[in-house]
Amino acid sequence: MSQEATSAYRRASLEPRLRIALVAPPMLSLPPQGYAGTERIVTTLAVELHARGHDVTVFAPGDSDLPCRVVPIVPRALWATGVRGTPEEGLRAAAIMAMERRGRFDVIHSHVDTAAFPIARVSDVPMVTTLHGRLDTAPTVDRIEAYPDVPLIAISESQRRWHPHANWVATIHHGLDFEATPFAADTADDYLALVGRLSREKGIDEAIAVARRTGRRLVMAAKVHEAHEQDLFAAVVEPAIADGIVDWRGEVSGVERDRILAGATATLMLGAWPEPFGLVAIESMATGTPVIARRAGAYPEIIGHGQTGFLVDDLDEAVLAVFRIGGLDRRTVASTTRTRFSKERMVSRYEDAFRSLVGGSARPDLTDRGNESRAAEGRPSVPEAAPVA
Amino acid sequence: MSQEATSAYRRASLEPRLRIALVAPPMLSLPPQGYAGTERIVTTLAVELHARGHDVTVFAPGDSDLPCRVVPIVPRALWATGVRGTPEEGLRAAAIMAMERRGRFDVIHSHVDTAAFPIARVSDVPMVTTLHGRLDTAPTVDRIEAYPDVPLIAISESQRRWHPHANWVATIHHGLDFEATPFAADTADDYLALVGRLSREKGIDEAIAVARRTGRRLVMAAKVHEAHEQDLFAAVVEPAIADGIVDWRGEVSGVERDRILAGATATLMLGAWPEPFGLVAIESMATGTPVIARRAGAYPEIIGHGQTGFLVDDLDEAVLAVFRIGGLDRRTVASTTRTRFSKERMVSRYEDAFRSLVGGSARPDLTDRGNESRAAEGRPSVPEAAPVA
Repeated sequence: MSQEATSAYRRASLEPRLRIALVAPPMLSLPPQGYAGTERIVTTLAVELHARGHDVTVFAPGDSDLPCRVVPIVPRALWATGVRGTPEEGLRAAAIMAMERRGRFDVIHSHVDTAAFPIARVSDVPMVTTLHGRLDTAPTVDRIEAYPDVPLIAISESQRRWHPHANWVATIHHGLDFEATPFAADTADDYLALVGRLSREKGIDEAIAVARRTGRRLVMAAKVHEAHEQDLFAAVVEPAIADGIVDWRGEVSGVERDRILAGATATLMLGAWPEPFGLVAIESMATGTPVIARRAGAYPEIIGHGQTGFLVDDLDEAVLAVFRIGGLDRRTVASTTRTRFSKERMVSRYEDAFRSLVGGSARPDLTDRGNESRAAEGRPSVPEAAPVA
Repeated sequence: MSQEATSAYRRASLEPRLRIALVAPPMLSLPPQGYAGTERIVTTLAVELHARGHDVTVFAPGDSDLPCRVVPIVPRALWATGVRGTPEEGLRAAAIMAMERRGRFDVIHSHVDTAAFPIARVSDVPMVTTLHGRLDTAPTVDRIEAYPDVPLIAISESQRRWHPHANWVATIHHGLDFEATPFAADTADDYLALVGRLSREKGIDEAIAVARRTGRRLVMAAKVHEAHEQDLFAAVVEPAIADGIVDWRGEVSGVERDRILAGATATLMLGAWPEPFGLVAIESMATGTPVIARRAGAYPEIIGHGQTGFLVDDLDEAVLAVFRIGGLDRRTVASTTRTRFSKERMVSRYEDAFRSLVGGSARPDLTDRGNESRAAEGRPSVPEAAPVA
């Protein structure tokens, strides 16, 4: 157990336990299999808050498997039953279920986007929403303006920058459990990695172009479900597979994803889409593999240029970054990342945010600022180098 | 005269005058007409250093018109004689001419890119180079590595970030003389502006797309000389002119450029190319017109998101920024910019850099950091609002 975790436990033993409701979306069960963002964070919060002795209830699909109490919002995860998309009513129904039981909780923490806002506005128990998406497009941009009193938590300063006057409780960067994450001090094979969704906004074209220009193989593990994803696969990826540029792996398990990331010399995240956080970046860096990312979204906050990766503006810079990647120390990349984005740090910050809401005191804005602010926090927890296949 | 300028004069009167050589490129005469970057900065430096009492010699085309001494490096500016491109030998010849006369100078300040490096390396008089271009592409990237001892000045932190171990004397953001720059507190006409070169890297396509999506007219003043510029004009601009989206003005004078900028509700700079500085941004903001720029190059250093403009990652964000632009105070945009990017601030920093080189002391790195650092410096000097046609 890290020092930070130990002190969190000590503090918890002096302060009253909280009765916390976490509201998850109905699409995936917890913990999620395969590609997921929101659900992994809700899972991490639930497991760690429960371990710290809080009374945790998760409103989630009934086929979830968590160590704490689960209240089923649907019998089975919707996407497992063939439903596609993100049904607004399903999201709101989850928040309403938590609201109906609010007498049992000190705080309700919603992860169902703006769907919870009408409920949060009238709840007499604090209901705070962590927003996981981008906040500059319709309908989100207008809803945030329409509900100025609803307490919000941002996952990056970039995400929050279009709404400076919203009721922000904190910006809390994501954290993950890296205990089982492999670390590779050296890479035997000089390939680039791309992990995520197969979507233009994820920089698929750019990654293939960089692989071509640098003569590297691009190992690609990505989800291809929806029609536009299949179109992009046929138009852009298949020709690159035929040329021997792309080594296609499809959608993979978490273990396989970590193996691919750990074995790469760099992970590419070149989309211009303003990524509100970018979990793949910290997953990659935790294995020791630096990230070459476009200077967009939250990447400037989570990647240290010349330390844990490179921030680039265009393909020329991305190509230079590939040739410079050997100058970064993979052990530093991993240790910096495992400290800055530990689950302990994230959960401690959420505890602070919950207590400030429950106490009803004038809220400090408990914000994870840019790169530098957290650099010295906690202590590294990189395991000894282990060979990665 | 601003307070900063006054104190600079006072200091200058206590410290010995410097004998300064400025080496300009041979392509344009000084001051430059029309679109130019490097030449405007050399002109600003020459005029202001001379006004502060330094002994200033400028190595420049013979048809230059400056208040100080000019040593002709070519009889007439090369581009005025029909030469195209940037001849490396011409650049180096200018540096050699200054080097041959080095006994007359305390410091030689080169603006001819890496062409001066072989000369700077052997000069027994300090020869410092301000780099005006991007530093991550061939041959620049390799030359900087090959001449690690040559003293360098960057024009932004972004420009310099690929060479953390080069011999940086300082990062000095550009400054301009805004005395004749118009300021418009209100705009009668709701149009967007684009000023610069007609090149994909300047975000022409993106600007037209944003104008279409927001129903705004795009007033475009841009240079169209070279073949690729003409191709882009035919492919992208002409159809938008036909659709009534683009109001085309071609290459315009400085006065006309300022008039266009001052009358706009926002200036668009959406190229992904890593702009080492971006003079058009400060020209626009000095008139009171905020800039909507991609979060690339130096823009995050010179534009304050939500204060003097907006930094965007993609078209959705750019569209939102257009709709949000009315929330910015044009007087604050102008005053902030005229203070942070005054010619007095720039020239004082160059004086500091020159003295540190002449003194031969351990050099501090006299760096203009990000947005915040200079925000409180000096005092605003915005003229009273004057109507702009």
